[in-house]
Amino acid sequence: MDERGLHRLIGTIIAPERLEDDCAIIPCGDLLMVASTDMLHETTDFPAGMTDWQIGWMAVAVTLSDIASTGAAPGQILLAVGLDRPERIAGIMVGARDCCTAFGAELVGGDLDSHRELTLVSTGLGLVAPEHLVQRRGAKPGDIIAVTGPLGEAEAALIGYDHHRKELLEPQPRIREGQALGRAGASAMMDISDGLAVSLYDLLAVNDCGFSVDTARLPLPAGVPEDEGRELALYGGGDFELLFTAPPALLPVPGVTAHVIGEVIPDPVVLADGRPLERRGYLHEWKA
Amino acid sequence: MDERGLHRLIGTIIAPERLEDDCAIIPCGDLLMVASTDMLHETTDFPAGMTDWQIGWMAVAVTLSDIASTGAAPGQILLAVGLDRPERIAGIMVGARDCCTAFGAELVGGDLDSHRELTLVSTGLGLVAPEHLVQRRGAKPGDIIAVTGPLGEAEAALIGYDHHRKELLEPQPRIREGQALGRAGASAMMDISDGLAVSLYDLLAVNDCGFSVDTARLPLPAGVPEDEGRELALYGGGDFELLFTAPPALLPVPGVTAHVIGEVIPDPVVLADGRPLERRGYLHEWKA
Repeated sequence: MDERGLHRLIGTIIAPERLEDDCAIIPCGDLLMVASTDMLHETTDFPAGMTDWQIGWMAVAVTLSDIASTGAAPGQILLAVGLDRPERIAGIMVGARDCCTAFGAELVGGDLDSHRELTLVSTGLGLVAPEHLVQRRGAKPGDIIAVTGPLGEAEAALIGYDHHRKELLEPQPRIREGQALGRAGASAMMDISDGLAVSLYDLLAVNDCGFSVDTARLPLPAGVPEDEGRELALYGGGDFELLFTAPPALLPVPGVTAHVIGEVIPDPVVLADGRPLERRGYLHEWKA
Repeated sequence: MDERGLHRLIGTIIAPERLEDDCAIIPCGDLLMVASTDMLHETTDFPAGMTDWQIGWMAVAVTLSDIASTGAAPGQILLAVGLDRPERIAGIMVGARDCCTAFGAELVGGDLDSHRELTLVSTGLGLVAPEHLVQRRGAKPGDIIAVTGPLGEAEAALIGYDHHRKELLEPQPRIREGQALGRAGASAMMDISDGLAVSLYDLLAVNDCGFSVDTARLPLPAGVPEDEGRELALYGGGDFELLFTAPPALLPVPGVTAHVIGEVIPDPVVLADGRPLERRGYLHEWKA
């Protein structure tokens, strides 16, 4: 069974609409608070050679990326650290703090535990005006589909294209872009952490329409042969660009690099170049 | 080095006042939001024989206990699960949901990951009016020191007193009591998850006064010889009663069982029966 199969099971235990988005939405005075939590651990999430500083940075960046995808301004980060060796904590905390500082968040607390395998769980809070909130649901036929930057760079680094290691190890959450798109009126948005194909199927699951992309328009990783780059852009995980839909007249949004890659269609299917796209990418798996 | 030694190091990286309390405090309209995160994992935190339902319950209960210690009303829980075997998720999620429901919280989201060792991180949010917030700092000489129930029961169960297994495996966060004490005007409060002695030293670290307890007044675990019970009450971990200070005239607070165990004193020391109390209890340790 994979992660999304277990999600369906969990939807029978807690309110299933709670599972639709990367962030929970909580009333907070006249604003909405968004909250997201992400677990990372050594064997699954931290490529060999990663420094402790980069590990701390990444733990915060993945959560800020979830907040970015709602259009919210980041506020506070809590970091729970299951620590294998005490000498690692300083590097991890400095990396986490630096990522917070870089994107306007504050590291306000956490928990510390001893663990055989280094395990980090970051929880992020952000604020957004109700009229600027963007969620996965909301795409409409005729909307364009766009992404905020090149896809497949992180996976390219994993298979040896070392010039993309910085994108793999120090992801840059699209905080500024997410807020600008929320204010401009994007209709649906999410981040692409598990790959474009999986993300398009995630949008399909909560919208009453379909998604058709043109692979010739995908922004590909630099310095990778085109065919390989296209495969990485469709199925590679670890990118943290935003995937969004919007009425065509919305673009350009000042300050936001947007690559239009396709169109929202009435039929509830995911197509690439007119053919059904394989649902494949990064998914946690458990043996049955 | 132990957990609190590492905390001091972390206090050189992030704002040290952020480390004083179990919860971060965040403005939310006219109210304050409290936020807390706790990591639990199989080898350290889940005694043998614990069911998946109890594991889910406990993961939520420990975080609700942190929220209770501020006087806040619990709101939302996020649960990150590092899952070793997929068949465990249903029991864990039902236990987590049931604990939320029992104490007025809602399970609104989380993260799911595959992990060699079952690891749960719950993050809780709560709301409190600024005038009802209670923190660790605030004790004044002349205040009474009190606890909300018997101490040492969880540790008693760990060493074989099976009639206390329910207290060990299904802790009951003192949500109602925390809110009542906050509204009544308790001066300082925390929960006692790492044992009374460690908790008194935690209060000492952030207050400009000391704490003197009378061991004859400790509420002891039932069915345990008195000397052993007193040792468990002082040094045993895993209880989730509230420890608070308050002006003597505050008690009784309607609906709150309070056992007065001592008095706040001007000298910055922790005393038991007039002698310095050993700082010993449950602390995560790492080999140097």
